[in-house]
Amino acid sequence: MTDAGLLRPGAHRGDAHTDDTAVLQALLDVEAAWVAAQADAGLAPRAAAASARAAARAADYDAGDIARRAEGGGNPVIPLLADYRRRLGQLDPGAVRFVHRGLTSQDVMDTAMMLLARRAAVPLAERLSETADALARLADVHRGTVQAARTLTQHALPTTFGLKAAGWLAGLQDLEADLAGLARLPVSCGGAAGTLAGSLALFPGAPDAAEQALELARRWADELGLSLPPHVWHATRRPVLRTGETFAAVCAALGRIANDVLLLSRPELGELREPAVEGRGVSSAMPQKQNPVLSVLLKRTALTAPQLVAQLHVAAAQFVDERPDGAWHTEWPALRELARLAVAASSHAAELTAGLTVQSARMRANLDASGPAVLAERISAELAPLLPPAADGATGRQRVQEVVREHATDGPGMLDALVGLAAGTALADGTPVDRDVVAGLLDPAGYLGANDLLIDRVLAQHRRSANDRPSITRTSPGASA
Amino acid sequence: MTDAGLLRPGAHRGDAHTDDTAVLQALLDVEAAWVAAQADAGLAPRAAAASARAAARAADYDAGDIARRAEGGGNPVIPLLADYRRRLGQLDPGAVRFVHRGLTSQDVMDTAMMLLARRAAVPLAERLSETADALARLADVHRGTVQAARTLTQHALPTTFGLKAAGWLAGLQDLEADLAGLARLPVSCGGAAGTLAGSLALFPGAPDAAEQALELARRWADELGLSLPPHVWHATRRPVLRTGETFAAVCAALGRIANDVLLLSRPELGELREPAVEGRGVSSAMPQKQNPVLSVLLKRTALTAPQLVAQLHVAAAQFVDERPDGAWHTEWPALRELARLAVAASSHAAELTAGLTVQSARMRANLDASGPAVLAERISAELAPLLPPAADGATGRQRVQEVVREHATDGPGMLDALVGLAAGTALADGTPVDRDVVAGLLDPAGYLGANDLLIDRVLAQHRRSANDRPSITRTSPGASA
Amino acid sequence: MTDAGLLRPGAHRGDAHTDDTAVLQALLDVEAAWVAAQADAGLAPRAAAASARAAARAADYDAGDIARRAEGGGNPVIPLLADYRRRLGQLDPGAVRFVHRGLTSQDVMDTAMMLLARRAAVPLAERLSETADALARLADVHRGTVQAARTLTQHALPTTFGLKAAGWLAGLQDLEADLAGLARLPVSCGGAAGTLAGSLALFPGAPDAAEQALELARRWADELGLSLPPHVWHATRRPVLRTGETFAAVCAALGRIANDVLLLSRPELGELREPAVEGRGVSSAMPQKQNPVLSVLLKRTALTAPQLVAQLHVAAAQFVDERPDGAWHTEWPALRELARLAVAASSHAAELTAGLTVQSARMRANLDASGPAVLAERISAELAPLLPPAADGATGRQRVQEVVREHATDGPGMLDALVGLAAGTALADGTPVDRDVVAGLLDPAGYLGANDLLIDRVLAQHRRSANDRPSITRTSPGASA
Amino acid sequence: MTDAGLLRPGAHRGDAHTDDTAVLQALLDVEAAWVAAQADAGLAPRAAAASARAAARAADYDAGDIARRAEGGGNPVIPLLADYRRRLGQLDPGAVRFVHRGLTSQDVMDTAMMLLARRAAVPLAERLSETADALARLADVHRGTVQAARTLTQHALPTTFGLKAAGWLAGLQDLEADLAGLARLPVSCGGAAGTLAGSLALFPGAPDAAEQALELARRWADELGLSLPPHVWHATRRPVLRTGETFAAVCAALGRIANDVLLLSRPELGELREPAVEGRGVSSAMPQKQNPVLSVLLKRTALTAPQLVAQLHVAAAQFVDERPDGAWHTEWPALRELARLAVAASSHAAELTAGLTVQSARMRANLDASGPAVLAERISAELAPLLPPAADGATGRQRVQEVVREHATDGPGMLDALVGLAAGTALADGTPVDRDVVAGLLDPAGYLGANDLLIDRVLAQHRRSANDRPSITRTSPGASA
Repeated sequence: MTDAGLLRPGAHRGDAHTDDTAVLQALLDVEAAWVAAQADAGLAPRAAAASARAAARAADYDAGDIARRAEGGGNPVIPLLADYRRRLGQLDPGAVRFVHRGLTSQDVMDTAMMLLARRAAVPLAERLSETADALARLADVHRGTVQAARTLTQHALPTTFGLKAAGWLAGLQDLEADLAGLARLPVSCGGAAGTLAGSLALFPGAPDAAEQALELARRWADELGLSLPPHVWHATRRPVLRTGETFAAVCAALGRIANDVLLLSRPELGELREPAVEGRGVSSAMPQKQNPVLSVLLKRTALTAPQLVAQLHVAAAQFVDERPDGAWHTEWPALRELARLAVAASSHAAELTAGLTVQSARMRANLDASGPAVLAERISAELAPLLPPAADGATGRQRVQEVVREHATDGPGMLDALVGLAAGTALADGTPVDRDVVAGLLDPAGYLGANDLLIDRVLAQHRRSANDRPSITRTSPGASA
Repeated sequence: MTDAGLLRPGAHRGDAHTDDTAVLQALLDVEAAWVAAQADAGLAPRAAAASARAAARAADYDAGDIARRAEGGGNPVIPLLADYRRRLGQLDPGAVRFVHRGLTSQDVMDTAMMLLARRAAVPLAERLSETADALARLADVHRGTVQAARTLTQHALPTTFGLKAAGWLAGLQDLEADLAGLARLPVSCGGAAGTLAGSLALFPGAPDAAEQALELARRWADELGLSLPPHVWHATRRPVLRTGETFAAVCAALGRIANDVLLLSRPELGELREPAVEGRGVSSAMPQKQNPVLSVLLKRTALTAPQLVAQLHVAAAQFVDERPDGAWHTEWPALRELARLAVAASSHAAELTAGLTVQSARMRANLDASGPAVLAERISAELAPLLPPAADGATGRQRVQEVVREHATDGPGMLDALVGLAAGTALADGTPVDRDVVAGLLDPAGYLGANDLLIDRVLAQHRRSANDRPSITRTSPGASA
Repeated sequence: MTDAGLLRPGAHRGDAHTDDTAVLQALLDVEAAWVAAQADAGLAPRAAAASARAAARAADYDAGDIARRAEGGGNPVIPLLADYRRRLGQLDPGAVRFVHRGLTSQDVMDTAMMLLARRAAVPLAERLSETADALARLADVHRGTVQAARTLTQHALPTTFGLKAAGWLAGLQDLEADLAGLARLPVSCGGAAGTLAGSLALFPGAPDAAEQALELARRWADELGLSLPPHVWHATRRPVLRTGETFAAVCAALGRIANDVLLLSRPELGELREPAVEGRGVSSAMPQKQNPVLSVLLKRTALTAPQLVAQLHVAAAQFVDERPDGAWHTEWPALRELARLAVAASSHAAELTAGLTVQSARMRANLDASGPAVLAERISAELAPLLPPAADGATGRQRVQEVVREHATDGPGMLDALVGLAAGTALADGTPVDRDVVAGLLDPAGYLGANDLLIDRVLAQHRRSANDRPSITRTSPGASA
Repeated sequence: MTDAGLLRPGAHRGDAHTDDTAVLQALLDVEAAWVAAQADAGLAPRAAAASARAAARAADYDAGDIARRAEGGGNPVIPLLADYRRRLGQLDPGAVRFVHRGLTSQDVMDTAMMLLARRAAVPLAERLSETADALARLADVHRGTVQAARTLTQHALPTTFGLKAAGWLAGLQDLEADLAGLARLPVSCGGAAGTLAGSLALFPGAPDAAEQALELARRWADELGLSLPPHVWHATRRPVLRTGETFAAVCAALGRIANDVLLLSRPELGELREPAVEGRGVSSAMPQKQNPVLSVLLKRTALTAPQLVAQLHVAAAQFVDERPDGAWHTEWPALRELARLAVAASSHAAELTAGLTVQSARMRANLDASGPAVLAERISAELAPLLPPAADGATGRQRVQEVVREHATDGPGMLDALVGLAAGTALADGTPVDRDVVAGLLDPAGYLGANDLLIDRVLAQHRRSANDRPSITRTSPGASA
């Protein structure tokens, strides 16, 4: 044991797809798939491919030992290969010579990291879909649940909790193109120098050896559920950057939901409550406390991802030569942790949104406590144009604003004052601005803008997405999956 | 004056599209376009739109004064609006009331930042195209210029400088989808609370006021050369993240080129040389030095961008409410600086690649100085399978490796030793492994793998891209362009 | 004009000490002081020193032009030197030859950045002292103002606002060693290669030329109010890191205050309110809103500083050779921006804390609304040991916790239940646990722990610090100050 | 198993002091020491302290299980406490009630992280001392080994490898104050709300309960080899920041050494070579390659630390309330990883510097290949003042520079030209500038500035440090050490 996860509570939900066992399995699958690709190409016997696969079970390897020996070459591929060749040699000695030939450590490492990301994308997409479904329900159900919109911490205008939930969902919809990208991650295949020289040597004398080498890489990609990239990317890290950015964007989008929940579930606001689960949110000293732990963990995740993305960008900016002297090595833990955090966060978010308790009455009460001033924008927009300048030169807008400021928290007072101010004026359609008209202006539920249309647009997009959804999850990503 | 650029040499190349004058112009254009959109929608007279545009010249405003007054509301929109209304009032008093109505500061700020990015994308795409053209020429011309491939600082295998240049170009091709995204940046339109309530108030009594409000936003987007987003994104920052990530990825891709140039133009390597320009690369104390300044500045840029991307991710992770209390404000300088750096870097790269001097002879000499060991992979792959185990149990692979190690830097010695080792063996096609065959194995130019095919694929992509190229630059992005 | 500060509202408060005029002045002062040091050492006439100083007024130089020309050498020193020599040549042609001799650009640039930081430290220390004074007052005055302590967003225990203010103050006290470091920043003096070869050449034939060269550097440091470092640090960036870390730690400590203010001034909490100032916190659409702008700007600053520190660490990690090829250049804007933000933040904090409104009644009301459960820790600690296990095996602790959970928000109910539970038990000193004793346990003001002692300790430290305070501000930092 | 270290080769050298077993042990020691402190204070029997210690062996706990259960409360303390109480209950039921009483999870977590850092500081200081010793030897031995000083990648002036090694050592000396800080890390003791209310309850009825509670904390600190801080720092994170900054500064200082080694061991430079060790630096495909793996890993570490520091600053900037809702949680893995990387890096550096091979001849050859131009600064400084302006108005400086540029790489040519130029001039002491004088100017070994004095100063500091050295390592940090 080195790290069991003590210092990143909740992230264990991503472990199955991202921990060192998963890394080891990805590395082994990548090697085994290379033998399989050779078999597909007629370069190796089918039996060798089967043996290569049989020898590629992570459970048969000692990750700690490999980790220690990884120091010698600066990466885990070299010691793993030694163990893999030994193990395969026990099963099928003749198969050993097909292992890794033509490849370089970087091909295996980069491809394994892509495979890891591709596999992590499956539970990620599933949990995000569940989250999206839950948010769609909340958006629809609460389209009439009036709530204060808050900007810069203060009440601004009325909105609805349905629209807030739709905004959360929109944040997930913004990620759809990114997630689709995770379904097309590329293998990395360039050989020791990016020339594919090692692969070409598998086709001695063939005039189209280069084309055949590329075709071999394509077979490899097919075996792994990955794609053949347009070019060799050993020193061109956009695929790594984009993968990391996607995971981080997931963390940010979910973190924003958590930020709102953390705020709105404070006792003084009391508008939302996390689902209560036995043993969660407990305090060692204060048994009465129910901490919003899912949201705390989501916020933790969102605050962690940015530096991991920066790490990938620092690495990409440092590439040099055909393989750099340290930058490459910084990518691995950063990309893996991003995948782990994103998967765990999606699980937390699915659970949070599925069980979120909405306190509609508190939402309304909090808004009402602000008084009529939250409708200032509306009042000003409606009444100011009707008013002539005052004797002292104050414009209509200034006259309204003065009343609003004076009676900011006093509904009846503001009603009286505005009725007085507007006496004798009429709306564009000729309706006199009387007490009823002004009272209508002061009803928050009547000033929700395009609330329903905006929610409907997000829900329509949700239905379209739900139909497309299987794409990322249906393909089995790779050999051992 | 506050900052004239003293501390970021060379970044002035991006100033025209990103400095505070450009910011001011973007803000003004955004406000003027809103009046124009109202005119398009029949909500304001055409003359008001013309006046709004006439009043929107950045040169007529005092940026320093606005910057100081921006403290009061925490953003520059509020003081700018006051000045803009005053100025417009002098030109056309009746037009003032159409200004900003229905909008909130965040709509203007976010949209202006998108407009700034969109405008910066034009010179960026142009300079990157020039860079790509230069790289395509280098890739093609130098497809036979043999060079050492270096991994982890050491010589690995032979490659060609053409393939290196193709790899640099591939790094730019990886950005094409990102750059295309810059051509479709969205306006931000949600009003004070994301409900569009203010916009709806412009259509009093209309049963389809929500649809009309959206249509107004679409007209606004059209005026600005931006797009209407699928939903309100005031608290959903994927558009900002993606824009910043694109700029940073440009900086990283160009930085990688610079890293290679910086290394290869060291006197001990001498394989490349930056274009010499009077007054550049000079040292205050050492007149003989010609420093590779373009590459230094490109590397500077690449090392700066990652933290700016992290800043955007930190911001996105902190969004809360309908507008957050500080996170939003951290985006502006980060996104602007990314745009500035990317534009400047693209200019530096275009100049660097257009004038790069390639020292083919030094490339070959450096490779040859490594001796035949750089062909170890090949020798091992070709000869090891032919050799029987030695008497002491050493495998064919081990026997070859021993020879390679012993004669690593001694070509003739290795030739002799390998000829001896392989005596009596034959290739798969029956050819005996004689001195000629072994000598052929030791010729670096004969072990370039898929060099030509890989270069051709990148060049083919380059031709396709060149045909698509005008898309990002042909659309005039926005009002004042 | 390039950047007037439009995108960083409020940061103009740091401009006087950090903007490009200040940078230019620092560079000029560094060059002029070098001539003065030579005069002190008898290497130049006094008149040359006076002329050098006279020619060193930033206002006489065109920063924009220098910024553009800085591209050629990758730093502003080279073009500035050309202009400085020309200007000095007009005043005193004989003085020109003393300018910069023996120095290299990096000496000037690094020393100027240290001088800039040193000068920024003066207003920074002053504003932080004012902030500390205000916090000390709040801590003392509100030592009895009971407030809910909140952990993970939920009410935990009672505390006092005085202790919270003392905690804020403690955060500033933690910075005292850091700030003291700013008073001892070093010059950078190594010459073109870190050997001081250029300086030694000023003492031709002197057997102790090396000692004299160091002595010259010491005179230079004295002129500038800086210190002579123990060694040449051109490639050893701890001084830069430490300076940046100090500024960032200031931003974090002040940001924490802002975070609390932003939360506690939300309308639903209402415990604090920022000082109201005409024109601040205004909204363009909502005249009634009073946004906590000082705190928003402080939070903005705190969220910005971390990536700037990371930038300095990335730079330090990249140093190579006797001067690196890009990393060095990334330090300048990062360090300057940290200084600017820290100075501005200290000004915002001084204003915020001096005028903070404390709503004691709301503090108490919010706490009381939580009910007696916030005393759960106490109740459990006091009563659990007295209770025997229940018939069902529940321990005393479990029995108390059950009551606490059941009556968490119901004070009278909990009182009754606990009185019943504890019937027949007695405290350690024999006092029977009756209704009075239990009622005492339920009084938050009686469970404030070491509140007074903890406040007193912070206040005592404050008095000690106040006595030491002048140290950082009394020394005039450098030539033009 | 979750993570065995596959993705961070070489970092296992820090595992013993930082992995999850070490975390678990630190947490247990912190809890056990609290019981011991109570025993010291007479609040608990000595036997309870002994039992508490006996139950605190990490090997007796299931870290993976605790890690999973840590999700419920968001930190590992809660489930660990349950297991610890259970285990202790088996050993000594009467001792259980003393466990954790008066503490809160944050007290334990923060203190355990400080203890972890304190313990990591021991091997860190030891390995850094060894590294310093090795560098001191190199500096002394190679004080006459002439080498090119390189700035912005190009040869600048002559220097010596001894001075470079002294500069590396100076970088470590800059860290001494930081490392001393690691010997005084504080416990965190505030109780659930920072008031110490829980601790005070241990002294019921005592009039000086607050003082006694503080005294108890001091005993706790003594038990752990930590210090009592001046105030409660639960929401004031300078101790955490400073600790992380120290580790990161170590990584940067060592990374700079690695950067130089990586460059200078490139085959085209060949000035340095890493110590060769069987099985290190091997390539899977290229048996001849000897990669500089220690330096690669050091560079990897240096490129990783900056974002971890940023993570701590982001956390500090986000603290709010008496315990924040996510920011706190992001500190743990960042601080631990910094400790692990720093310890591993110090081990790599000690090994690297102890076995570094210096190729003095290559150093000289590389310098000589640059020709006499590297002495341009000297030539200009010495000869320019002696020369009158030319007929065309060129100054002496310009005349010299013209010659230098023309003959930059041609020693004999430059000698002839300079002799011609200087004909008839004399040095300040009257010596005529003849061929011997000019030839002397062209000898790099004669232009090394204060090389010896600078080296001597660093070595003197090294001797002083060596005398102080035991301080950080001699104190046994904490209960189980």
